Amino acid sequence: MTKGSPSKKRRVHFDPDNVDIVVEQGDNLLQTAIAAGVHINASCGGSGVCGTCKVLIENGTVDSSRTEKLSEEEYELGLRQACQSSIITDLMVHLPVESRLEPAILTRERKELAAGRQQLEALATGWRFAPPLSKLFIELPPPTLDDNASDLSRVLRGLKQQYNLDNISVDFSVVKKLAKVLRDGDWKVTVTTLLNGSETRWDGKRGQTIINIEPGDTRGKHYSLVFDIGTTAVRGQLLDLNRGKALAQSVDYNGQISYGEDVITRIAYCQKPGGLKKLQRVVIATINGIIKQLLAQAGVEVRHIGHIVVAGNTTMLQLLLGLEPKYIRLTPYTPVANFIPQVRANYLGIELGEHVYLHSLPSVASYVGADIVSGILGAGVYQRKKLTLYIDIGTNGEIVIGNSDWMVTASCSAGPAFEGGGVKYGMIATYGAIEGFDINPSNFEPVIGTIGEVKPKGICGSGLINIIAGLLEAGVIGQNGKFNTDLPTKRIRQGSDGYEYVLCWSPETQIGKDIVITEVDIDNLIRAKAAMYAGCQTLIKSVALTCSSLEQVIIAGAFGSNIDIEKAITIGLLPDLPRDKFIFIGNGSLLGARLTSFSTDMLDDGGRVARMMTNFELSENTAFMNNYIAALFLPHTNADEFPSVNKRLAKPKKSKLKK
Amino acid sequence: MTKGSPSKKRRVHFDPDNVDIVVEQGDNLLQTAIAAGVHINASCGGSGVCGTCKVLIENGTVDSSRTEKLSEEEYELGLRQACQSSIITDLMVHLPVESRLEPAILTRERKELAAGRQQLEALATGWRFAPPLSKLFIELPPPTLDDNASDLSRVLRGLKQQYNLDNISVDFSVVKKLAKVLRDGDWKVTVTTLLNGSETRWDGKRGQTIINIEPGDTRGKHYSLVFDIGTTAVRGQLLDLNRGKALAQSVDYNGQISYGEDVITRIAYCQKPGGLKKLQRVVIATINGIIKQLLAQAGVEVRHIGHIVVAGNTTMLQLLLGLEPKYIRLTPYTPVANFIPQVRANYLGIELGEHVYLHSLPSVASYVGADIVSGILGAGVYQRKKLTLYIDIGTNGEIVIGNSDWMVTASCSAGPAFEGGGVKYGMIATYGAIEGFDINPSNFEPVIGTIGEVKPKGICGSGLINIIAGLLEAGVIGQNGKFNTDLPTKRIRQGSDGYEYVLCWSPETQIGKDIVITEVDIDNLIRAKAAMYAGCQTLIKSVALTCSSLEQVIIAGAFGSNIDIEKAITIGLLPDLPRDKFIFIGNGSLLGARLTSFSTDMLDDGGRVARMMTNFELSENTAFMNNYIAALFLPHTNADEFPSVNKRLAKPKKSKLKK
Repeated sequence: MTKGSPSKKRRVHFDPDNVDIVVEQGDNLLQTAIAAGVHINASCGGSGVCGTCKVLIENGTVDSSRTEKLSEEEYELGLRQACQSSIITDLMVHLPVESRLEPAILTRERKELAAGRQQLEALATGWRFAPPLSKLFIELPPPTLDDNASDLSRVLRGLKQQYNLDNISVDFSVVKKLAKVLRDGDWKVTVTTLLNGSETRWDGKRGQTIINIEPGDTRGKHYSLVFDIGTTAVRGQLLDLNRGKALAQSVDYNGQISYGEDVITRIAYCQKPGGLKKLQRVVIATINGIIKQLLAQAGVEVRHIGHIVVAGNTTMLQLLLGLEPKYIRLTPYTPVANFIPQVRANYLGIELGEHVYLHSLPSVASYVGADIVSGILGAGVYQRKKLTLYIDIGTNGEIVIGNSDWMVTASCSAGPAFEGGGVKYGMIATYGAIEGFDINPSNFEPVIGTIGEVKPKGICGSGLINIIAGLLEAGVIGQNGKFNTDLPTKRIRQGSDGYEYVLCWSPETQIGKDIVITEVDIDNLIRAKAAMYAGCQTLIKSVALTCSSLEQVIIAGAFGSNIDIEKAITIGLLPDLPRDKFIFIGNGSLLGARLTSFSTDMLDDGGRVARMMTNFELSENTAFMNNYIAALFLPHTNADEFPSVNKRLAKPKKSKLKK
Repeated sequence: MTKGSPSKKRRVHFDPDNVDIVVEQGDNLLQTAIAAGVHINASCGGSGVCGTCKVLIENGTVDSSRTEKLSEEEYELGLRQACQSSIITDLMVHLPVESRLEPAILTRERKELAAGRQQLEALATGWRFAPPLSKLFIELPPPTLDDNASDLSRVLRGLKQQYNLDNISVDFSVVKKLAKVLRDGDWKVTVTTLLNGSETRWDGKRGQTIINIEPGDTRGKHYSLVFDIGTTAVRGQLLDLNRGKALAQSVDYNGQISYGEDVITRIAYCQKPGGLKKLQRVVIATINGIIKQLLAQAGVEVRHIGHIVVAGNTTMLQLLLGLEPKYIRLTPYTPVANFIPQVRANYLGIELGEHVYLHSLPSVASYVGADIVSGILGAGVYQRKKLTLYIDIGTNGEIVIGNSDWMVTASCSAGPAFEGGGVKYGMIATYGAIEGFDINPSNFEPVIGTIGEVKPKGICGSGLINIIAGLLEAGVIGQNGKFNTDLPTKRIRQGSDGYEYVLCWSPETQIGKDIVITEVDIDNLIRAKAAMYAGCQTLIKSVALTCSSLEQVIIAGAFGSNIDIEKAITIGLLPDLPRDKFIFIGNGSLLGARLTSFSTDMLDDGGRVARMMTNFELSENTAFMNNYIAALFLPHTNADEFPSVNKRLAKPKKSKLKK
């Protein structure tokens, strides 16, 4: 088909995915890629401002003028912003490496998680193994003319006689299949019950609901699922509820990533007609994909999955559940519900049996979500007297300080720097991202390490911390984050955004360009770390303590798992405490969800934790603003806050390669 | 289109309905009529054995051989059994009057209901007006940065503060619309709550569930529905829950009647593939039609309906709910459930808001259903010491004997005689049915009255009772039900089924044939009344009492409402007690459902009544068989059982016209 043909149908081919799709002339190229299942990074959700969705038009014509996100040279080469391009003719489109996602990287896990995965579950103590989901086998006498009670009465009688169960309710769906199942099983059946009262709050006596009935004895097949719905990635595990262990785990990018990288962009997308429904469908599709992988890995049939527990930040849960997220973003930042009633999984489109209910862990506020509650629960913070800082670093960093008596929490809007946003060569932590960094203090030459040990294509958040800490220790930048332009190295130079330091020369990169870090990048990171640290300070001062009183620091989250504690302290992101007080727990959200599935005690404690936590809104808080301004320095304007760092900065430099 | 055309499409026109439908050649004519929405009586559900579905083929050809249900003369005229006919060509089909239903007749109501409709609700006493469905108006403070609790927490807090409501759960569907409704209503909203614990049984403390939320103050619009799902007719009322009264009522034939007249035929139909689904859809369509009428009558919008309560016999409820009815029909006659968990009305296909739950009154056994429980509830039988017989006469007649201390119940399979089945010119109680009957004892000439005062076309059940009582009192038949063939009247003659009495000569009828009553008909009625009376006797003897100890007889049901007490006692159907002990309550099922909607006390009492009732299975009960055989006489072999009747039968006859 040639340009100008009267037909409106256009075929678009995407490489390297090798996918074709036929669409209408005039369709948006980014939307076309999404429709074809081809992921293009589009941090801003397709509004044209981030410039991450660059594609190469190898053949054909799009309607797309040059924006400031494309250099003249790039435009000449055929690069376009997909979100700003309308399809005119048939196309051959190539996705440059920096516009693509690498799924494999999601499985990267810190080696030295808190004393190993086994012991992670020992952080929270004192819980009985007693899942809220139970399977009970009953043998019933068949009906006779002298005893022709209804099928349901017979089942309830059996549960009373054999398990002393009373005050039990029954899902209508169970009644629907009851007659057949009882007779198919020759009056020997397995009943699945789910504890009531996980809805909103519950102060009364606990009942149970019969949610399923199967012929014969199926107690041996007793499984459930847990999910952490992250803004970037969705992680799931399949649990064996007889043995209390995870049989399989899997992870994938949250399909919503094509609609924007952070929660704010996603909420904005929901304001378009059908936007919320679409984002809900997309994350459900991600979940369904993960479920398929989990079932295959564990060799379990879908009908034996009886429960699903989810955690995630407030926005992610609201999108999953189809709840209007608009007011999360608008002051005064109200979520629809912190305690979400259980809902049938298949009502949401999750491909599980009709009997499966989805339990959401409770949240505290719009920006302190169920993922944090779940982490606090899983890490047992609420169980001990030990004064703990729990921190999950990200675009929105969440902080909890407290112990078994009290807990305060806040969310800090750190900006996207930790996830590679707002940084010239920033990228998410995937293959080719520079993470390891050291510098020779004599000639200021860097030694870099990338994720996957491939040629670099950018800098991820943890890399940024390492680079800035290294540059600071080597005296390449000062404590104000500005370059020392007097140093004898051509790596420090004037670029289009002011001074910059060249990390890699173009021939060594995947992208054919020098990868640099600019003063603007450094400034962005300083703002991000200042927000996190000021959050901690504000919270701890609110309870009339100081950072030095902290007895434990728990670092949760994918980003936190990959930072270097020493470097993070050096730049003033984490408080300057003895290093053995820091514990990494990885995905705290999944940890708590798992314990919730294993133990009714923990399920109840989840509610208790959410209600214990007092949320501080920092956005219009004067103390926070003062703390923030004081933290806009490396490591901090107040030298007393970081004694060990300031001591080291005063020492002569020596080189040591990390990572 | 002419016969033999290669096309397979055939157009069928039905008169007098004046309906056309295009179907495939070879399709069954009865099914075609159903598909076209044309009702043809088909008592046996289309299996060919009842002969009630005769139609006249005015034009065109069907493939249908003559059966024993069609005389040669009828076959010559073009009459065919619709259920036995395949469509060959385009057709013009005329439905004879006796194959049609007259909807208007369903609204016929006994004039002298227990002291009038107003006082009906006073039969049950001591209940508070406190519907299980409540509407609560709350005014909430809008969120601020200092108080940015979630929308749901705000609502729950409001309910706690303004109504001291606690321990409340929330439907997920409410959470879904919460954000919008709160803001649309400017933080003034009306919450609809439904009392929990109507599922199966409930012994603990009562909670409530928020099932709906609306912007503004909608307390003034607070309505619910009640339905009695009868085998023949479905009756509904729309209730105002603020004023505690019915605003509208409506009735229609149960659409399932086209698939068989009695519960057994319907259950048999469910064994066909898709049969249960089909019958469920059909009765739901009937309900939806009635709902439309009720809303229009009352001028109420469907969104203001908040609850629906249904009663009916066990089979009708199971079909409504899509529950396998097979085991109702097979020994030992087990229903799926006596206490049915509430279910969303729109899950069943009932066209009401998403928030509306359907509450089914509980039943006792396969043949003592929620309609009986509802009647006992509504009539307050369980509240008084007075020893009561509650009787609902029909194909399956249900009997309850007891008082506030105990209740026994049984169902008697009386056969179809009371509904016009198994009777040569039997028909259901609609226009043209002979109901009134008297006889001149001097010349044995009858005086008949028909429903609607039109020309007769058959005999309904109540007519049959009146006719047999009249013939007995006039000495036309003996106490054994046999004709006195010595009498000087040509109305007694030998027919194809043995001796018969001519009620109307053909010119006076709508059907162009003599309408007669035969010895076989009389024998069928004697068996039916014997079953009912033997049931009463068996129950009362089981508690070591006699019929003479009864202090009250409550007659419920459409059929019962139209019988003549004196005549019913004369033939030995009802016990020979002082006539002022008999009370008619009409549709007891609807009465109890209404009280259940008005009062949580009554809702709870419904469960108590169902559990109080001890069911006797009569089908293999020796005492019942003996009582039955003893009752196969007019009025009874034991003259002491019917002293007043036997006294009267001994007197000389005189004429008096009853209708």
